[in-house]
Amino acid sequence: MLTSTLIGTDGAGRSVYRSKHINQDGRHVLLYAHAPHAHPPTGAELDRAEGSGELRRHPLRLEWNIYAPARQDRTYKPDGAADPLAPSQPGGPATEIPFATFDLAVFENRFPSLSGASADAPAAGAQLRPAAGRCEVVVYGPEREGSLATLTIDRRRLLVAAWNDRYSEMFAAGHEFVLPFENRGEEAGVTLHHPHGQIYAFDFVPPVQAASARAFAAGFDLAARLNDWRQDFEVMNAGGLSVFAPPFARFPFELWIASRAPRRGPWDYNREELDAFATLLGNVTQRYDDYFGRPTPYMMSLHAAPRRAGAGFQFTTQFYPLLRSRDRVKFLASIEQATGVFTVDVLPEWAAKELRR
Amino acid sequence: MLTSTLIGTDGAGRSVYRSKHINQDGRHVLLYAHAPHAHPPTGAELDRAEGSGELRRHPLRLEWNIYAPARQDRTYKPDGAADPLAPSQPGGPATEIPFATFDLAVFENRFPSLSGASADAPAAGAQLRPAAGRCEVVVYGPEREGSLATLTIDRRRLLVAAWNDRYSEMFAAGHEFVLPFENRGEEAGVTLHHPHGQIYAFDFVPPVQAASARAFAAGFDLAARLNDWRQDFEVMNAGGLSVFAPPFARFPFELWIASRAPRRGPWDYNREELDAFATLLGNVTQRYDDYFGRPTPYMMSLHAAPRRAGAGFQFTTQFYPLLRSRDRVKFLASIEQATGVFTVDVLPEWAAKELRR
Repeated sequence: MLTSTLIGTDGAGRSVYRSKHINQDGRHVLLYAHAPHAHPPTGAELDRAEGSGELRRHPLRLEWNIYAPARQDRTYKPDGAADPLAPSQPGGPATEIPFATFDLAVFENRFPSLSGASADAPAAGAQLRPAAGRCEVVVYGPEREGSLATLTIDRRRLLVAAWNDRYSEMFAAGHEFVLPFENRGEEAGVTLHHPHGQIYAFDFVPPVQAASARAFAAGFDLAARLNDWRQDFEVMNAGGLSVFAPPFARFPFELWIASRAPRRGPWDYNREELDAFATLLGNVTQRYDDYFGRPTPYMMSLHAAPRRAGAGFQFTTQFYPLLRSRDRVKFLASIEQATGVFTVDVLPEWAAKELRR
Repeated sequence: MLTSTLIGTDGAGRSVYRSKHINQDGRHVLLYAHAPHAHPPTGAELDRAEGSGELRRHPLRLEWNIYAPARQDRTYKPDGAADPLAPSQPGGPATEIPFATFDLAVFENRFPSLSGASADAPAAGAQLRPAAGRCEVVVYGPEREGSLATLTIDRRRLLVAAWNDRYSEMFAAGHEFVLPFENRGEEAGVTLHHPHGQIYAFDFVPPVQAASARAFAAGFDLAARLNDWRQDFEVMNAGGLSVFAPPFARFPFELWIASRAPRRGPWDYNREELDAFATLLGNVTQRYDDYFGRPTPYMMSLHAAPRRAGAGFQFTTQFYPLLRSRDRVKFLASIEQATGVFTVDVLPEWAAKELRR
């Protein structure tokens, strides 16, 4: 049973369809394309892992951590023949996506850190709560190799449309904060090389987003600052969006994408901005790879407004490369982990100049 | 000119002396031993790097970052023949320590992240301030190889005495928070393999310590909880100190050392606790190396009270190993970096049971 829905248009104005399949273990598999998916599933499916996690409160950092012991057994760097993100071939081994073809696929993680229904708010002082939320994997395409830079622009437009669909559904389900992200490269702990990202839906507002919401509510206006930073910190721009090294970057060569007009999330982008976003996601990755002369390991995350954020929250997409130079990896060590203070060797204004070339 | 001072007694009750030398570039070199240092300096000295850093406020995370571009050029994995932490031989190349012998040495970092005099408080809304503070390197001994576990107990007692001397001097100089720490192993970004740690003195209270101070002020009593956690979370104990996996650990196999009686810092430890501390620093490291069957990369940090902390702050020493299992490195990736929420695969109670064996 495959249900196709027209979810809107992409940055080029083309219709985008979501075709939904529900696995026997209840997990959703979603195929995004410019047409309804025309082929039935192949039949072979993988099963959800046993066990669910919990949140525990760190009494000295005043933060919630997620405990998900089932993840210790998760798939770890399978060889090419067992790519779990590849299309399933009839008669072949099951993969995560029980279809022989697809353009862009999203499925619920079999080893989720967050899962289950929305929890009630914990009693005051409670030290434990269920790890409610949702974890999805976003497979950028059927290709086993590549990056945001090697995807076609059409595929990146689909990716942006899929993110917006996930925001819409996850907020409607009551999740408080939704984080699409990508870990790229072994230095970012990536266990599967097939190009993909992930989405975590939290049932609470994480501390970083809570701080941002406070800052925006207090009047910080990022869009207004972009103009001041243009000369010294901007690396490229397109269609109302700017790519810049934030003057307060925490990682060497950190870059952000933001719009010159205030937007709460990519769902607020107009068509020109949606198209520029799809373009720049590839251009930033390409610029890194050109500059470092190698596939650049990075962490990318979309910082959109939490569901119930107050006015003023402004959306940014943040890239944290894990290199200090071509052959030097950026490690996080004691100072950062023990104090929360980042020590930065590469000045953002210098990084911007280097990356502008 | 070498000035020797009796600074107190170590965990075994032996006198500890600090012998101070001032380099031509003004940096202090301190030798700690059970007797005044008897030999003059060798003459050859290294010079402090040019340039000083600054603090910048992250307007969305509401945190200060340290910018120290001079560090990009710092010494990077020199080969054995150029060990900058070895004793200097007369006529040989200069090292960081211009003495032909020493037991335990502390010197001011030539590539400091924090340096200079205490800064005035920044004007409200200021985004920049000088990176005031102090960075020191603690060389555990003249040996080029080894770990906290292979040092003699006498040397570890000296180390604890040296830390207490540094706390005393740095608080007297007006620094607000002092962090002795050690990054061990290449996975922690260590560029020098000669056993050593570091000390950072901050002129502000970092966010992690500010949160802890709030928690302790609100009544969190770690010493009282140790008894509840004994059965499920304790790994070993000695002389009034407990080594345990905190139930809210953020890293797999994370261990803390804490005293059963509340202490603000190691300067509050009585003689029995000082001796147990020197013992346990080695035992924890040895236990990790035995369990993982290899030198275990970790971040270790001493979480003592800030200078002006209110009542109730309790001292802990925290070890964050960087392994999930013998051959799997723990990476920090997007979730942690983008949201501040840690995802933990290894339950602390399971880790405690494993490490107790």
